[in-house]
Amino acid sequence: MKSTAYQLLATDGEARRGQLHTPHGTVETPAFMPVGTQATVKGLLPSQVETTGAEILLANTYHLLLRPGHELIRDLGGLHAFMGWDHPILTDSGGYQVFSLAHRRKITEEGVIFRSHLDGSKVMLGPAEAMRIQLALGSDILMSFDECIPYPVSRETAEESLARTHRWEEATLEFRPEDGRALFAIVQGGIFEDLRLQSAEFLTNLPFDGYAVGGLFVGEERCDTLRVLGAVGPRLPADQARYVMGVGTPLEVVECVMRGFDMFDCVLPTRNARHGQAMTFAGAIRLKAARFQRDEAPIEEDCDCLACLRFSRAYLRHLLMAKEILAATLISHHNLRFMQRLMDGVRRAIEEKRLVAFSNRLASGLGAS
Amino acid sequence: MKSTAYQLLATDGEARRGQLHTPHGTVETPAFMPVGTQATVKGLLPSQVETTGAEILLANTYHLLLRPGHELIRDLGGLHAFMGWDHPILTDSGGYQVFSLAHRRKITEEGVIFRSHLDGSKVMLGPAEAMRIQLALGSDILMSFDECIPYPVSRETAEESLARTHRWEEATLEFRPEDGRALFAIVQGGIFEDLRLQSAEFLTNLPFDGYAVGGLFVGEERCDTLRVLGAVGPRLPADQARYVMGVGTPLEVVECVMRGFDMFDCVLPTRNARHGQAMTFAGAIRLKAARFQRDEAPIEEDCDCLACLRFSRAYLRHLLMAKEILAATLISHHNLRFMQRLMDGVRRAIEEKRLVAFSNRLASGLGAS
Repeated sequence: MKSTAYQLLATDGEARRGQLHTPHGTVETPAFMPVGTQATVKGLLPSQVETTGAEILLANTYHLLLRPGHELIRDLGGLHAFMGWDHPILTDSGGYQVFSLAHRRKITEEGVIFRSHLDGSKVMLGPAEAMRIQLALGSDILMSFDECIPYPVSRETAEESLARTHRWEEATLEFRPEDGRALFAIVQGGIFEDLRLQSAEFLTNLPFDGYAVGGLFVGEERCDTLRVLGAVGPRLPADQARYVMGVGTPLEVVECVMRGFDMFDCVLPTRNARHGQAMTFAGAIRLKAARFQRDEAPIEEDCDCLACLRFSRAYLRHLLMAKEILAATLISHHNLRFMQRLMDGVRRAIEEKRLVAFSNRLASGLGAS
Repeated sequence: MKSTAYQLLATDGEARRGQLHTPHGTVETPAFMPVGTQATVKGLLPSQVETTGAEILLANTYHLLLRPGHELIRDLGGLHAFMGWDHPILTDSGGYQVFSLAHRRKITEEGVIFRSHLDGSKVMLGPAEAMRIQLALGSDILMSFDECIPYPVSRETAEESLARTHRWEEATLEFRPEDGRALFAIVQGGIFEDLRLQSAEFLTNLPFDGYAVGGLFVGEERCDTLRVLGAVGPRLPADQARYVMGVGTPLEVVECVMRGFDMFDCVLPTRNARHGQAMTFAGAIRLKAARFQRDEAPIEEDCDCLACLRFSRAYLRHLLMAKEILAATLISHHNLRFMQRLMDGVRRAIEEKRLVAFSNRLASGLGAS
């Protein structure tokens, strides 16, 4: 099995153009990963996800643990076979969902005991469980187990949580796969820059295969987000991939790229699509708006997605008003294709050392070529 | 523009193997028409509907009149362009929905005044309106305007309704397209065989382009359904297409074919799919059942639909339990592909004069090759 490895190809300031090699193929970076929470990118066939240009998906350990269960997926050949996706898969560790979705959490040194949000059953998730589950799923990239603290918290709480997160993450190394699959660490520390740097230092001295930053974009001021990312980015190993979890809008992704990060994931392109919001380089548009009732144009003129190649805004609006499933499929495909076109532009801009100009054009809504 | 015309190729008893030529292409008959109620076959792209083998769709005048409006569709280039379907489309006249969905109906000689089930607005639908709407939509086959009586009704009510239906249908002839598109009449008369024959005689003496039987499968005993169909079939012109509206299960379709009918439509393959029911030649299966939890087999071994080519029953069950949109897409594609495989078998069986044996095998759940 081919090992996971990051290869740096070019830089533009702190921004990096690279390739992430995994057992299921190579991912061009910076890369946006669509989210397949429950072993499906909502509304799309795997073959349709492929045609957006996506090269790697994220799936959620917490959701798959509760339903249908990781052992079932393992017994049926692993997550790739189960969901029909032959390309790389990254799984999160479930930490974030335990702290955002689960009920009646109790934190112990071994992990978190909680009640399933589906049926109230009692579940334990800690470093050992998170790793066993991800190994059973067969992900290419496994994420270490961390605690996600809410915002705001006191420095004392952040320190205490970070120390436990570090113990948990170190414990996951015992399960680090030796078959080429990768285990990424997650830098935490809230908005406290010195805790973030301490976390980066502690984790980069351990034999992880890549590094993520978690616990940002949870309500803090944007200046704090960027300050933390700007401080942490340069402290991460140049020869390993860097991932900002749960990000984000087109501009946020580019801001992260400019601070040296390579990988991103977000549910917004598909979630917003289901609510009728389409992404364009001139800004997002609400397709339910009355002004699109007779609009014969596609969502975006130069887009080659399933929606734009064939259907008018008027038709998409009709599908949304009539609550037709096809609206979710078409607009999700558009938004995911949009994100990949954005990343294409980002990668080209880095290669040509004009990422700042690219970012300025994007912010002005002038397109991103 | 090519004219609509039915061409008889072979017979097996009363059953007919033929071709229906329309301005948007040729349909091999007997044919099953998927239903695209609101200008979309629920959950599927037009290109996916094509890959089921479907050659013609049905769309609903009543639904499209209320939303988004036939004038909007006409102004955007007609229904084919609007929904991205380049093949034949048949539209019903709205009569059935007016009597099953609309509120506060008032029947006059000119038609029916009712309240929209969407917003309560007052709408008038009669022979003239039904034709103007279908002409605006640009359907290849327009249906005449009729009254659908409930079951059971008295003979007196049935007679009175039939007389009005005949006046309405005759009135639609004034709008019969002269550009190759077809106008089909609808035989009514409830379960009263003599009224049905009277209706067939009256309508076949008028210059319609094809004939449908409506108002069956509305709760009457199956022996009455078959008795009416068996009596009416032979009275319809041999050189024109014959359509049983709203039918049906695989066995019902074959029963109708054996009585000389060529065209069928039904929402059940897609509606049942959304509820997790998959059609197979060994009978329907409820994919939510616990016994499929770890079932690695496809829905049906020899099926080439989007679901069976790639996904296990276990995965489809997971999607259903997790209420994922993709379940509707995959199982709808399977069920529509199943109906087309059924019709393939029916057509071959007629060509080889073995439709009765085919029907017996189907009824025994032994497959249908």
